[in-house]
Amino acid sequence: MQSEKGDAVKVDPKRFLADLHQLRSFGASGIGKGVVRPAYSQADMDARAWLMERFEAAGLRAAVDAMGNTFGLAEGESLLMGSHSDSQPEGGWLDGALGVIAALEVARAAKEAGGPAISVVSFQDEEGRFGVTTGSAVWSGQMNLAQADGLTDHAGVPLAQARRAMAGMVTGEVDPGRFSGFVELHIEQGPTLDRSGEQIGVVTDIVGIRDMKITFEGQQNHAGTTPMHLRRDAFQAVSAFNTALNDRFRNVVTPTTVWTIGHVTLHPNASSIVPGRARFSMQWRDGDSERLDRMEGIIRETALQVADDMGLTLDYGPMLGLEPVAMDPRLRGALEQGAARVAPGLWRNMPSGALHDATNVSRLMPVAMLFVPSINGISHAFEEDTDEVDLVAGLEVLAHAAAALDQTSTR
Amino acid sequence: MQSEKGDAVKVDPKRFLADLHQLRSFGASGIGKGVVRPAYSQADMDARAWLMERFEAAGLRAAVDAMGNTFGLAEGESLLMGSHSDSQPEGGWLDGALGVIAALEVARAAKEAGGPAISVVSFQDEEGRFGVTTGSAVWSGQMNLAQADGLTDHAGVPLAQARRAMAGMVTGEVDPGRFSGFVELHIEQGPTLDRSGEQIGVVTDIVGIRDMKITFEGQQNHAGTTPMHLRRDAFQAVSAFNTALNDRFRNVVTPTTVWTIGHVTLHPNASSIVPGRARFSMQWRDGDSERLDRMEGIIRETALQVADDMGLTLDYGPMLGLEPVAMDPRLRGALEQGAARVAPGLWRNMPSGALHDATNVSRLMPVAMLFVPSINGISHAFEEDTDEVDLVAGLEVLAHAAAALDQTSTR
Repeated sequence: MQSEKGDAVKVDPKRFLADLHQLRSFGASGIGKGVVRPAYSQADMDARAWLMERFEAAGLRAAVDAMGNTFGLAEGESLLMGSHSDSQPEGGWLDGALGVIAALEVARAAKEAGGPAISVVSFQDEEGRFGVTTGSAVWSGQMNLAQADGLTDHAGVPLAQARRAMAGMVTGEVDPGRFSGFVELHIEQGPTLDRSGEQIGVVTDIVGIRDMKITFEGQQNHAGTTPMHLRRDAFQAVSAFNTALNDRFRNVVTPTTVWTIGHVTLHPNASSIVPGRARFSMQWRDGDSERLDRMEGIIRETALQVADDMGLTLDYGPMLGLEPVAMDPRLRGALEQGAARVAPGLWRNMPSGALHDATNVSRLMPVAMLFVPSINGISHAFEEDTDEVDLVAGLEVLAHAAAALDQTSTR
Repeated sequence: MQSEKGDAVKVDPKRFLADLHQLRSFGASGIGKGVVRPAYSQADMDARAWLMERFEAAGLRAAVDAMGNTFGLAEGESLLMGSHSDSQPEGGWLDGALGVIAALEVARAAKEAGGPAISVVSFQDEEGRFGVTTGSAVWSGQMNLAQADGLTDHAGVPLAQARRAMAGMVTGEVDPGRFSGFVELHIEQGPTLDRSGEQIGVVTDIVGIRDMKITFEGQQNHAGTTPMHLRRDAFQAVSAFNTALNDRFRNVVTPTTVWTIGHVTLHPNASSIVPGRARFSMQWRDGDSERLDRMEGIIRETALQVADDMGLTLDYGPMLGLEPVAMDPRLRGALEQGAARVAPGLWRNMPSGALHDATNVSRLMPVAMLFVPSINGISHAFEEDTDEVDLVAGLEVLAHAAAALDQTSTR
């Protein structure tokens, strides 16, 4: 048997679940297991203070940087594990929290076993009260603190003001150089594992995103007195664009490619007025940069053709883009090995369609991710949940990987 | 020559244009010829007080009913002419005002000539601060005063409160039985006459309207983690519905039929979220009730099929409907005769795609309408305008019709 080699760090599922439920008590919504714990809210800060105590109790050194990213540091070089503990305005109990508490349990168990050295992190504002994965963006140097301070939330509160409430908790900057890599356990936030009845997804890459606003401008007119052939109806342009695009994408996309028109604003948006202007979001995601480029070409070509055919003008907002991030083969291999042990026949490789802190951290060090199922694919909602047996499976894969990576690095 | 028979009442174009410009001074926006004179505003009430003076000066008896509909009454049975003098929140100088001042000039000139008996009306709140053609709706018994009083404007002000400001001007109810018919001159508010270079449109019928809200409810999902084949995207349903509908309508509609999706609301309307719900307006207009019915059948069938195909639920709001109103043949004939005299080769028969007070008044008496061009088809905007030569052409057609109708009724 392989009992001595590749064995997991011996984690305690009960202690892990108890901590996970305790974290849920900070900002508990009172509706199901939901939480309301947005970045820098009192609940978020209380949860981070509690995490710091937990880290110290586990023999880790608690540290908080200026952004509020909260660490539990092992001595010397260590593998970093974690996620985030802030939530959506109406969030679930697992999104982010699972990865933080699983990391805490692995680090604690590893400490008890005399190794390997595991550190823990809860990044701040992953859910984007102010930006997008703001805390890890600053920590990884994607954005400097002054830029972040200028961001405002929907109510107009600047980040600089929000983080002042945490100033008393800050211990100083945390040097990324002390970490050999980053592993993040997260709920899938999609239906794939839940539908297939599998327990574990080992992420191959975090898909790239392109996102822009498109505006068609035609002619606002009276909906009773303007004959159809004289209309330059901006909603009709959006619909024609969408129909043509779905058709043209067919030969370019794969089953994991996604594209979405999620936001549409018509002007003046009244039932008796032919819409003069339509502004809408066009977002597409794929693991392959070249495919993202090809899709962009088709989008621009289709929009231009619709505008020309229908006599409208066409305008693009700024293009937001994040390149796909491939997971590190060595870290990913350790997760696959763990998945094969913990959930034989019940795991798969899959891309992450959602963005995670790991995207930012990949600029600094090797990263890998694993998923457990989301029941009915639901997240960002009070109903978000995962069977506890799957939560524990995720924890155990993480523990296996921690041990395996320790052996490969010291081999 | 036909100088003695069918000759017009001798109107004074200069006096007519001077009055029209003076009415514009009440609520002049200071931008082009635009006006801001919504129902029951101080500018509206001042304009109505001025109209009452003008009516009295023309030998008519000024009268105001409880709603604020403002009349200039000839003695005995008379033909009623007019329109409305309230404006859109940002309105043009001619929408409604033209019909009132042209009626004043015809009534005044007729009085000077010793006949025929012409009365004038400016209905209140045609532009729908509170409802839809509210003043004529109450006068014609479509709605009683108590129902109207319960209507509120966008700011939440009840009509009952707004009309209290006019209470001192009210003289009493005006019996519709004293009028033999109603003729309304109005700007076209569409591009047809302006494009064709014609001066006069004699209305054949005011088209009927059907209007309802349709809601598709699917499943709100994460736009990154939800594969395309598992989505139930409400925006995609609206687009598929629209595309199918445009295709299916082809064999049913005529060149004057119109249909519009002018209002669309997605929920939650965010670029990274697959829309779970889409609510949109579906409005269609035609002069033929049976065609409106057939279109409704196609709309309901198409929406149901899209919902079934894409796995969404379908819901309809209340259906708002106004039946088409055919113009009275005798009144319309008099307008056609006038148009042939005043603008030979430069007039046409056409439907009215817009709703007018004449729709309500048709419940009480024979009605007819004529149009003059709207430059570039623009109305409900400060830029609204019509060449003065066309305004005068409209006045003269009205004067011809007044004389012709007097002869036919006394022949």
